Amino acid sequence: MFVPRRLVRAATLSLRRAHTSAPALNSVNAEDIAHFSKFLTPTSIISTLSPQPSPSSELAPFNNDWMNKYHGQSTTVIRPRSTQEVSEVVKRCNERGIGIVPQGGNTGLVGGGVPIKDELVLSLGNMNKVRSFDPVSGILVADAGCVLESLSEYLAPHNHIMPLDLGAKGSCQIGGNVSTNAGGLRLLRYGSLHGSVLGLEVVLPDGTVLDQLSTLRKDNTGYDLKQLFIGAEGTLGIVTGVSILTAPAPQSVNNVVLALPKFDNVLPLFTKAKRQLSEILSAFEFFDRTAYDLAVKHGQGRALNEDETEGAECFVLLETSGGNKDHDDEKLNGLLENLMESDEPLINTGVISQTPAQFSSLWAIREGITEAVSKEGKAYKYDISIPLAEFKHVVDTTREHLRSKGLMRDDAVKHVIGYGHVGDGNLHLNIVATNYTPEIEAALEPFVYELVAKYKGSVSAEHGVGVMKTHALHYSKSDTSIEWMKRIKQIFDPKGIMNPGKVLP
Amino acid sequence: MFVPRRLVRAATLSLRRAHTSAPALNSVNAEDIAHFSKFLTPTSIISTLSPQPSPSSELAPFNNDWMNKYHGQSTTVIRPRSTQEVSEVVKRCNERGIGIVPQGGNTGLVGGGVPIKDELVLSLGNMNKVRSFDPVSGILVADAGCVLESLSEYLAPHNHIMPLDLGAKGSCQIGGNVSTNAGGLRLLRYGSLHGSVLGLEVVLPDGTVLDQLSTLRKDNTGYDLKQLFIGAEGTLGIVTGVSILTAPAPQSVNNVVLALPKFDNVLPLFTKAKRQLSEILSAFEFFDRTAYDLAVKHGQGRALNEDETEGAECFVLLETSGGNKDHDDEKLNGLLENLMESDEPLINTGVISQTPAQFSSLWAIREGITEAVSKEGKAYKYDISIPLAEFKHVVDTTREHLRSKGLMRDDAVKHVIGYGHVGDGNLHLNIVATNYTPEIEAALEPFVYELVAKYKGSVSAEHGVGVMKTHALHYSKSDTSIEWMKRIKQIFDPKGIMNPGKVLP
Repeated sequence: MFVPRRLVRAATLSLRRAHTSAPALNSVNAEDIAHFSKFLTPTSIISTLSPQPSPSSELAPFNNDWMNKYHGQSTTVIRPRSTQEVSEVVKRCNERGIGIVPQGGNTGLVGGGVPIKDELVLSLGNMNKVRSFDPVSGILVADAGCVLESLSEYLAPHNHIMPLDLGAKGSCQIGGNVSTNAGGLRLLRYGSLHGSVLGLEVVLPDGTVLDQLSTLRKDNTGYDLKQLFIGAEGTLGIVTGVSILTAPAPQSVNNVVLALPKFDNVLPLFTKAKRQLSEILSAFEFFDRTAYDLAVKHGQGRALNEDETEGAECFVLLETSGGNKDHDDEKLNGLLENLMESDEPLINTGVISQTPAQFSSLWAIREGITEAVSKEGKAYKYDISIPLAEFKHVVDTTREHLRSKGLMRDDAVKHVIGYGHVGDGNLHLNIVATNYTPEIEAALEPFVYELVAKYKGSVSAEHGVGVMKTHALHYSKSDTSIEWMKRIKQIFDPKGIMNPGKVLP
Repeated sequence: MFVPRRLVRAATLSLRRAHTSAPALNSVNAEDIAHFSKFLTPTSIISTLSPQPSPSSELAPFNNDWMNKYHGQSTTVIRPRSTQEVSEVVKRCNERGIGIVPQGGNTGLVGGGVPIKDELVLSLGNMNKVRSFDPVSGILVADAGCVLESLSEYLAPHNHIMPLDLGAKGSCQIGGNVSTNAGGLRLLRYGSLHGSVLGLEVVLPDGTVLDQLSTLRKDNTGYDLKQLFIGAEGTLGIVTGVSILTAPAPQSVNNVVLALPKFDNVLPLFTKAKRQLSEILSAFEFFDRTAYDLAVKHGQGRALNEDETEGAECFVLLETSGGNKDHDDEKLNGLLENLMESDEPLINTGVISQTPAQFSSLWAIREGITEAVSKEGKAYKYDISIPLAEFKHVVDTTREHLRSKGLMRDDAVKHVIGYGHVGDGNLHLNIVATNYTPEIEAALEPFVYELVAKYKGSVSAEHGVGVMKTHALHYSKSDTSIEWMKRIKQIFDPKGIMNPGKVLP
């Protein structure tokens, strides 16, 4: 998913920044390395600088994101083993005016976790211990560098699950999840990290450790400062420890794919599902016909046959998670019967999984869309929040706009598709083209962002801002909001060393 | 619940404040009233100042809290009808250096909503319109002055409920709920307001309107500034509008009171209940034997008979809320059978409600404790968060400490009791005395706060800080945290006009 247009934009932005506000930052030098060597083990320092220079290839995984879309030129990666070590490194960088990029699993989509220039990369991966877990309250305290999946594995024998789940779970780290306010697949059920994170330990830009690693569900003693760091993408400080409320593991899961004659039925269906499934509804995902057809074309074995999909304008994947399989089955079957028996059924057909393999194959249709899109062509991807009722309208309007520009043709834009998390109001709008061209980009931006702004939506529902969307922040936030973000940044990080060039324009 | 000792402390505090940090504030004068009259209707101004002075009795409900514990001497109450009017009033106060106390339903417990001196009271009650409700997403946008119960009534026909419920629901306002980060009875199930509040409209201390009234579940475009105002008790700005995620109404509710042979069984019971009831568990309340006996003594008809309570050291009230009555009954009965059949049962007996009247009478035991305590004597009340495992230890340790001081006797401290929300880790520790005496207070403070601090607990789980606990903030928050709170206060409110003397020491 290499998207060259973004690099051009980032470079432009970087130039603009250079002659406006950002303070000049210094490069790491040999004296800094010597200083770090006093309190860090040799394996915690990877640097192309003397005294024991590493080859630059060792730095590549830290300088480049996993999509190979964003590229830094850092000379030095520090991998501390304790909060105290993080603090000492930050103190030095603060004194010397060296930029720092906190890096978790480096699985972000917006370039927030890699350097812009030669900032020092502070990688949290060596801080990977569970500090405590209370099986009664479900409260887990962990180092920021713990990989999400390893925390899930840690919790499994205790019959608990993490309140978030992501495609990147095998690599992403809990500190990065918190810093990017990761959404993912369980948000509908367990809410956002602003609710489930109970405490944070943060190293501030001057090296001070802000210990708010509370293990309390309720604490009304003053401003909830930790909230500022949730979603700040490392620009206000480095999250080193996380206290989080985990959830009891469900005893039973079910899913079903429903074929709908028309999009207008999605919303009444969602309302019915919320009512009848209530507390066991755990996912309500939408994909339109084109998205479905692409997924099938590119390898998702037909979980539904032609009869079942004939005449369907769009589809819904619905998941339940509950404490009792019989009850959950009965609720889900009750909903399906109710849907089919109606005089004007909201759905044409529904396919319910009977086995774990079927469960997976139904999810594979929805999850296979991303891969199908990349096989079909070059995708312009927008991750937006808009009112549920407008999902189809936004997709159609974008398609019509491209058609009016003469761009809906086999050698330009092949498909405009929509899919995403209805339950969260989060639409993934994908424009699949034969090639990336300036003409298509000009037709899409700011058109799409303006469309989002019209609905008071968000230009980044879950991916964050990073370096990719700093220029688009104003489509979702007022001038007053952005001004206050800048003031917050200024008091926490007056020298601008913390993840420079990210989040704020 | 008039507690004179608090007044002494508040007065001391106020003196201390006067010669340390707070900027001098000005009183409202006739010119200010004339200015306000230019853009406010006459009924929006209640003032003892000319041109049309109101009798001071009209100001009494705004100058005194509902417990008649905290008393202000404000001359002027403004009741604006729009955000724009709030903004204009605040601008004037900012220019003139007049302190402002934002006031909702004035149902707080810590003096956060009444003036210390003669600050202007800005009462939100006239801003009481629902701005929008989307029955599909469940997202409600309302003026800050909407009464919680009226919002619940508004939602009922839409089969939704507010994600919070409080004893004060008939008077408290949603803006006040947000500003105090109200906890209440539904937190176990629906989480805190930091998760369910999706957006806020806030008038900042300079009169600027910060519009973050988003109706999006997901929005990762920069720092989540609104979080700062949740629980800031009106010291950073005035919440004028709230966007909140409401929950689908449960179709079925059940409750049961369980008698436990010993406190040690509470935690394994909680674990079992979470596992077997999973998503339908909606309350798990604890009260010890003394609390139960007091509730019975002072009028709660025996919902349990003597056989059922004999030998019980403590009790648990457990509530379920779900989407299907048959399923919920089956889950709850399954749990109770499992509990009784065990070789070493965790409970002696359990009484399950069979009718709405029984449902209410079981809740009445738990909810009757507060009233029983006030009938029994004078109560020192601590609202603390501590690890679940330490509930009994904290009660016992406090009792032993008082005994060692010779204070556990009929003419001093009669009872030390514990009750509260196990599910939230929130213990209400009540010391019931014959009279308030300096001797008892000296034995309790800082003893209790230090005990809380030892467990990294919170000295205010849900009631907030207000004016009552500013001196105790440091028991739950580090110096670094308090220092950063002060910096946040300083940038938002450099003149210190917004709810002066509250929250920060």
